[in-house]
Amino acid sequence: MSVDQRFYRLRTTIGLRQIADQYSLNASNYLDLDIAGISSFEDARDFELCYLENKAKSSQESAKPSKKLCFVAEDSQALQSKGSAYLLPVKRPKEAFFKIAAHMFAPLQSDEPLGEPRIHPSARIGAGSVISKGVVIGENSFIAPNAYIGPGVQIGRECHIGPDVSAGFALIGNGVRILAGARIGEAGFGLMNTSNGVDDIPHFGRVILQDRVYIGANTCIDRGLLSDTLIGEGSKIDNMSHIGHNTVVGRNVVMAAYAGISGSVRIGDGVQMGGRVGVVDHVEIGAGSHIAAGSNVLSSVPTGVIWGGIPARPLKDWQRETVWLKRQAAKGRQK
Amino acid sequence: MSVDQRFYRLRTTIGLRQIADQYSLNASNYLDLDIAGISSFEDARDFELCYLENKAKSSQESAKPSKKLCFVAEDSQALQSKGSAYLLPVKRPKEAFFKIAAHMFAPLQSDEPLGEPRIHPSARIGAGSVISKGVVIGENSFIAPNAYIGPGVQIGRECHIGPDVSAGFALIGNGVRILAGARIGEAGFGLMNTSNGVDDIPHFGRVILQDRVYIGANTCIDRGLLSDTLIGEGSKIDNMSHIGHNTVVGRNVVMAAYAGISGSVRIGDGVQMGGRVGVVDHVEIGAGSHIAAGSNVLSSVPTGVIWGGIPARPLKDWQRETVWLKRQAAKGRQK
Amino acid sequence: MSVDQRFYRLRTTIGLRQIADQYSLNASNYLDLDIAGISSFEDARDFELCYLENKAKSSQESAKPSKKLCFVAEDSQALQSKGSAYLLPVKRPKEAFFKIAAHMFAPLQSDEPLGEPRIHPSARIGAGSVISKGVVIGENSFIAPNAYIGPGVQIGRECHIGPDVSAGFALIGNGVRILAGARIGEAGFGLMNTSNGVDDIPHFGRVILQDRVYIGANTCIDRGLLSDTLIGEGSKIDNMSHIGHNTVVGRNVVMAAYAGISGSVRIGDGVQMGGRVGVVDHVEIGAGSHIAAGSNVLSSVPTGVIWGGIPARPLKDWQRETVWLKRQAAKGRQK
Repeated sequence: MSVDQRFYRLRTTIGLRQIADQYSLNASNYLDLDIAGISSFEDARDFELCYLENKAKSSQESAKPSKKLCFVAEDSQALQSKGSAYLLPVKRPKEAFFKIAAHMFAPLQSDEPLGEPRIHPSARIGAGSVISKGVVIGENSFIAPNAYIGPGVQIGRECHIGPDVSAGFALIGNGVRILAGARIGEAGFGLMNTSNGVDDIPHFGRVILQDRVYIGANTCIDRGLLSDTLIGEGSKIDNMSHIGHNTVVGRNVVMAAYAGISGSVRIGDGVQMGGRVGVVDHVEIGAGSHIAAGSNVLSSVPTGVIWGGIPARPLKDWQRETVWLKRQAAKGRQK
Repeated sequence: MSVDQRFYRLRTTIGLRQIADQYSLNASNYLDLDIAGISSFEDARDFELCYLENKAKSSQESAKPSKKLCFVAEDSQALQSKGSAYLLPVKRPKEAFFKIAAHMFAPLQSDEPLGEPRIHPSARIGAGSVISKGVVIGENSFIAPNAYIGPGVQIGRECHIGPDVSAGFALIGNGVRILAGARIGEAGFGLMNTSNGVDDIPHFGRVILQDRVYIGANTCIDRGLLSDTLIGEGSKIDNMSHIGHNTVVGRNVVMAAYAGISGSVRIGDGVQMGGRVGVVDHVEIGAGSHIAAGSNVLSSVPTGVIWGGIPARPLKDWQRETVWLKRQAAKGRQK
Repeated sequence: MSVDQRFYRLRTTIGLRQIADQYSLNASNYLDLDIAGISSFEDARDFELCYLENKAKSSQESAKPSKKLCFVAEDSQALQSKGSAYLLPVKRPKEAFFKIAAHMFAPLQSDEPLGEPRIHPSARIGAGSVISKGVVIGENSFIAPNAYIGPGVQIGRECHIGPDVSAGFALIGNGVRILAGARIGEAGFGLMNTSNGVDDIPHFGRVILQDRVYIGANTCIDRGLLSDTLIGEGSKIDNMSHIGHNTVVGRNVVMAAYAGISGSVRIGDGVQMGGRVGVVDHVEIGAGSHIAAGSNVLSSVPTGVIWGGIPARPLKDWQRETVWLKRQAAKGRQK
């Protein structure tokens, strides 16, 4: 996906020549072009800049031929023979990419000179709330006191935004309820090794809350890195939960309090989770599955199953192990 | 308990005839009456409307005769022969009840036209705080900057309300301390199946914080559904804890950080919990018991015991199992 | 460390005679002196007041001779023969100490008459933010809307303070990022038995965030009791984490979401923790060690190791036990 300029300001265009000079690259074919934007590798279109980490995944290696401009590690074998991108070999592709991205785009700040917010006359805005420039608020929506709505945020009809909520970089549908103190659209927790040590990775994505989503008090939904964090229609997330960057939650999902979902997770429609379930990054939970309270999900979960435990496994297995252990340990004691 | 009109506005009265017409009920005895209010089944008084879910509990079946008006499932056998309520059989009693409840009562909003707040001259209100109509604040209490106090909230003497706290639907005693960012009185996490799919259950209860209660930073205390969420005198709850709707916490209870107490739990006086204890809904923890850090309580706990583990059981059992497992697995490795 | 008067106001000086009278002490040597301040036992200088709990640690018993003034329990044998402090035997040393401390010092409030804040002309302050007296904000720092900066807080250059953040009693370095809703410097969770029952312990310490620290959304960093809670250079703490009072986190430490670190913990440089790690109070985690997600650390951890589990132990042991249990329980089922 391209960077959404409702949320990120284009500071400058950048020519490929400039990049080639900086990294001593031979990029003769396209030297006179400005790069068309920044993107993840998967979503990049022709002449958009992207990167591949050292260990490229096989799905990426088999990508179709394209003219995306891709930073790769100097010693990487990925993509070499396939013409699936125009390669820019550098020492640290991730650092090179995000340096250019941050040079090119900046997150809009609350005091940015944008258009005045457009607030439907039937919408009500509580005392002490700060509505930034470029915001749109729909019919009958209510923003409680002391909320903060960041630049460019779009809020649909019949929404309830609670007190002290902060929301940035977000597209919010109709009938959405966000309870007090929820944090929508902060940068995700991403770190990278750079020539100057470990550094935060700047984020250029968004949060999308579809219609009738419910977000509990003090819950945090981080925005995507180069794509969207998405919560599907009718999904309900209880208090003090955490949804990491790039995670996609399906429709009618229910998560009890303290759900801790890492980045880049995919959760199918109708999944239900008890309280305090943790999910490791980059796994998938199949549609309709149930996860017992207090479980840690360390691997992908099939559709339509009931899992639980630390690590999560079929709930019956976990229960059997618990019961068996109890019995054996009690025996051991009798001897 | 009846709905507290300091927090919920009576929008309209409703006649039983109106309900009978809508659900094609034969309610000839009382057709000319307005219903007297809404309530939980247990607390309903004569001519107040209430409901019983499909699986009525035995304690409810043995209730004394009364003239409460009660939605029950069409196929329910509960209460039939006992005259303990005037029965209104419908397809979905919960949905029918909450539809009427929400039609009849609406939570007061911060911009409601109520009486001016009454703030004791010795109380101090920080910059940027929003004090709604109908609020009462007692002697020497301090409201820090950027706090939000919702309509009708009563705050006693010598209280400290931290920055960015939001408090609604709450009766707060004397000497109460609420640290920064705590969320008092948001709606609980309750969902119901309706003819239009899963929907949030509207809440009509309150939060009661008795004298000398301490609520940690970013902790959430949800308000009751049709009754109160109550924290007893002198109880102390650390940061980022969560207390579900209708839960009743006794006196001098201590909970370390991340306590996650589900709805309708009863916690006895003097209970102590280590950090990150989870408690499933509708259980009871006996007075004076201790629960070890990181435990998940999945069943009621007797008084005066020390429990721990996942699921929680007598702490000695858990420790014995842990030690036994360690020894056995190490043996298995030597073979 | 002495009490930092940028954050705590000296209300009155107190003479030793006053204390001696109140507790019927024989303190003839120094009766005419004012006490020089309050401090922890370890840090107290001559004529500063401190206390030792009933069970003094051996390290304290072997302290060097000094003229610190120390409340001890009447029946305590600690320090008696060593002249390591001037002893003031009372029934409840902790209560006696904190009563005098709270009489002598009071935390500054946001409406205190201090000097105007000094804000660098290049710094930007969002709408609705409250910047208290005595605050200093450095070059190019950005304070987002609806933030609250308490009296005397020092913020360095190039810092980003997110919306709805509250920060008090804190010294914040350069390049620090604090995301939305984080709570910096609230009092820690400390309780003491007093003659009137259990009471909160007043806090007189600070929070120090060194350069390039990153604090996630809705994370809570409690201030020290009589010393500092410190987060070292370049350390990154994800959303909804909790750092207890007096805890010292080294440099370049990484903690994923929901880290729950109790009070007085010491975490070495370069430690990495997965999500939802809990650490009990007063333990030490050696430099460079890794702790797996979901672990509970109940004892000190050596340097450079990989630990996990509940309770945490070498990760390989935990994994072996998990696998062994699974296999055995499955066998038991086949019989």
